[in-house]
Amino acid sequence: MKKISGGVTAPKGFKASGVHCGLRKNKTKKDLALIVSDVLCDAAAVYTTNLVKGAPIAVTQDTLKNHKAQAIVCNSGIANTCAPDGIEKATIMAEETAKTLGISKDDIIVASTGVIGPSLNINAIISGLPEAKDCLDAGSTASNSAAHAIMTTDTIVKKVAISFLIGDKEVRIGGIAKGSGMICPNMATMLSFLTTDANIDGEILQKALSECIADTFNMVSVDGDTSTNDMVSVMASGLAGNTRITDVSSSEYKAFKNNLLFACKNLAMKVASDGEGATKLIECNVKDAPDINTAKVCAKSVIKSPLVKTAMFGADANWGRVLCALGYAGVPLNVEKIDVDFVSDAGTIPVCRGGHGVAFSEEKAKIILSEDVVIIDVCLNNGESSATAWGCDLTYDYVKINGDYRT
Amino acid sequence: MKKISGGVTAPKGFKASGVHCGLRKNKTKKDLALIVSDVLCDAAAVYTTNLVKGAPIAVTQDTLKNHKAQAIVCNSGIANTCAPDGIEKATIMAEETAKTLGISKDDIIVASTGVIGPSLNINAIISGLPEAKDCLDAGSTASNSAAHAIMTTDTIVKKVAISFLIGDKEVRIGGIAKGSGMICPNMATMLSFLTTDANIDGEILQKALSECIADTFNMVSVDGDTSTNDMVSVMASGLAGNTRITDVSSSEYKAFKNNLLFACKNLAMKVASDGEGATKLIECNVKDAPDINTAKVCAKSVIKSPLVKTAMFGADANWGRVLCALGYAGVPLNVEKIDVDFVSDAGTIPVCRGGHGVAFSEEKAKIILSEDVVIIDVCLNNGESSATAWGCDLTYDYVKINGDYRT
Repeated sequence: MKKISGGVTAPKGFKASGVHCGLRKNKTKKDLALIVSDVLCDAAAVYTTNLVKGAPIAVTQDTLKNHKAQAIVCNSGIANTCAPDGIEKATIMAEETAKTLGISKDDIIVASTGVIGPSLNINAIISGLPEAKDCLDAGSTASNSAAHAIMTTDTIVKKVAISFLIGDKEVRIGGIAKGSGMICPNMATMLSFLTTDANIDGEILQKALSECIADTFNMVSVDGDTSTNDMVSVMASGLAGNTRITDVSSSEYKAFKNNLLFACKNLAMKVASDGEGATKLIECNVKDAPDINTAKVCAKSVIKSPLVKTAMFGADANWGRVLCALGYAGVPLNVEKIDVDFVSDAGTIPVCRGGHGVAFSEEKAKIILSEDVVIIDVCLNNGESSATAWGCDLTYDYVKINGDYRT
Repeated sequence: MKKISGGVTAPKGFKASGVHCGLRKNKTKKDLALIVSDVLCDAAAVYTTNLVKGAPIAVTQDTLKNHKAQAIVCNSGIANTCAPDGIEKATIMAEETAKTLGISKDDIIVASTGVIGPSLNINAIISGLPEAKDCLDAGSTASNSAAHAIMTTDTIVKKVAISFLIGDKEVRIGGIAKGSGMICPNMATMLSFLTTDANIDGEILQKALSECIADTFNMVSVDGDTSTNDMVSVMASGLAGNTRITDVSSSEYKAFKNNLLFACKNLAMKVASDGEGATKLIECNVKDAPDINTAKVCAKSVIKSPLVKTAMFGADANWGRVLCALGYAGVPLNVEKIDVDFVSDAGTIPVCRGGHGVAFSEEKAKIILSEDVVIIDVCLNNGESSATAWGCDLTYDYVKINGDYRT
């Protein structure tokens, strides 16, 4: 597998665009994205578990029942959630996109992100669709435009593109994502659109996506708030020409899924590191747990703790807060066996052994915790399962961004 | 029932003191508190549910097995948690206090609050005990000194004192508490010491306390972090002279419990409103829920949401975040029935009816949300149960306080 340039347009058969249609006040901020395949795709998606669901979620769930799609339309600015006319507007959004592209409305994935509550200004979207169609392009600039158009408080474009072999055929997976607040499993507040030119059956694709999400996007937390509009979708054009993958026990399926996992993990980590106000990515590895659930619950609890997050912001090696977060995670623990290390590119420092503190250099700890990526290694010494969760620090800017988001 | 002046020393038979013994660097910060009864008391306590427990918790649990106690010793600065010599130090703390006061070590409630990890400087405590004993006094100043001594990042003293009749006898309940970070059910990071001169059996007292905690301190969240050292204790001297309460079905028990509930609620709200960095108290009432658990879980979910908390800081009527927090609370909901109002001394503004937004004046909303106490009224229109939770806004100062707590 190798990383290649581009995002959703890297796989064969995909074009993308992003334009400003008028939903956002700032005219330089793109707010409408299209991702379109030359051919009808096998497709799959995973959605928020929040009981308050955005209208686009309901419309897309219906569309994808047959695991087929050809295009994605997504706006930022308004979530189209809790508005009385939500379903109607999301349906019109799909219909108008289909009309503009000359394809079936039943093959359109609809997504929205932004403020919950207001009614969607559908006229702005309709007026923007022709330009969005005209801008469709297969280059990486076009993928970046789409990535920009789905951003809300994100500060960086999140994209990935890789290529690998299935049999003797080169296959590509590309993706874009947006964060960056209201982010917590399951799923992170977050949209991610993946594309691939692999030839793979839709139901098999769904299985691969669901499994990858569980260990990647669903292990990310920025603030513990599970959004109403989360969605990760994948469309497979089949244009790589590999023998169609229809069997989950095949080596071809495994190769595809491993690479999809890489792409999802790459984007999930980017979502975590660009969490609202974040200055650093925090990764928590929980090792030697009695089972995978314990490992996951513990890793997430550490990542979600506001006290751990603020300590990381301050580069303060306050490991007691890590123990505290493990203690209230809600799973049985043998506290007397727990070891904790802080790790970064600047080195490793053991801070806790057998549930008790060990002497360490505060100076060295400060240097280690001042890096952009900080790893909290927790060893439970009580089994063989492990899990990783990703988050970010809690900073003044998180408060600033969210203290007055709507105005 | 009427409010009276004072705190833990308001009930008959109690003296208190707070001194600086040297655990805190700042010599003007009191760090050692005593609360002592003239007579052996019936006593009860409730503790943190965190699996990582402070050593004082274990020692006190053992002490209170017989529901008897005569004194409380509590230090701030170091939590005496996760230190290898924790139990030994907490035991010495009880023994030395007993020796100083001339009572049995088996009647000493021990508590600590502060940084997790470091070994407790027991010599500082031992050297401070004689002064703490000399300062013992039954006035409200002495209660305030004790309240100051248990404070960490608290900015205000939290105390309550009430009097009421049981039969023809005047009975008093007093209490002090400390917050204010690492606060979440069950329990809030938090210490509270209650006293009463009621004559009540220890096991009955335990039942009353446990029931009151469930609806008060355990409904408070500042940051979702459940501390390792939480404890609420109550000591009953019996000096009010009422007929001993031994029956939970008696009107005397109900009178006592209702007043204990008032005292606990009063202190719990003070802990919430003085949450780290808080500028306002947020109360969430969930009404017309199908059952009490649903009401409690929903109220807590709203109070805990960082996005709701930052919106309240910004006086931003972003009610979609309230719906979002209800949606991921983890209980079944009929979203289409949910109504939400924002309420304060400045008025009431309906923002959501039947799960959808309603038009409202942003200007009026801003005025309502700018008050010191903001109430989020959620009506599920789906039953008859209700619950209330308390929290605070999330501000720059929370980040500042916790970014470098130890140094």
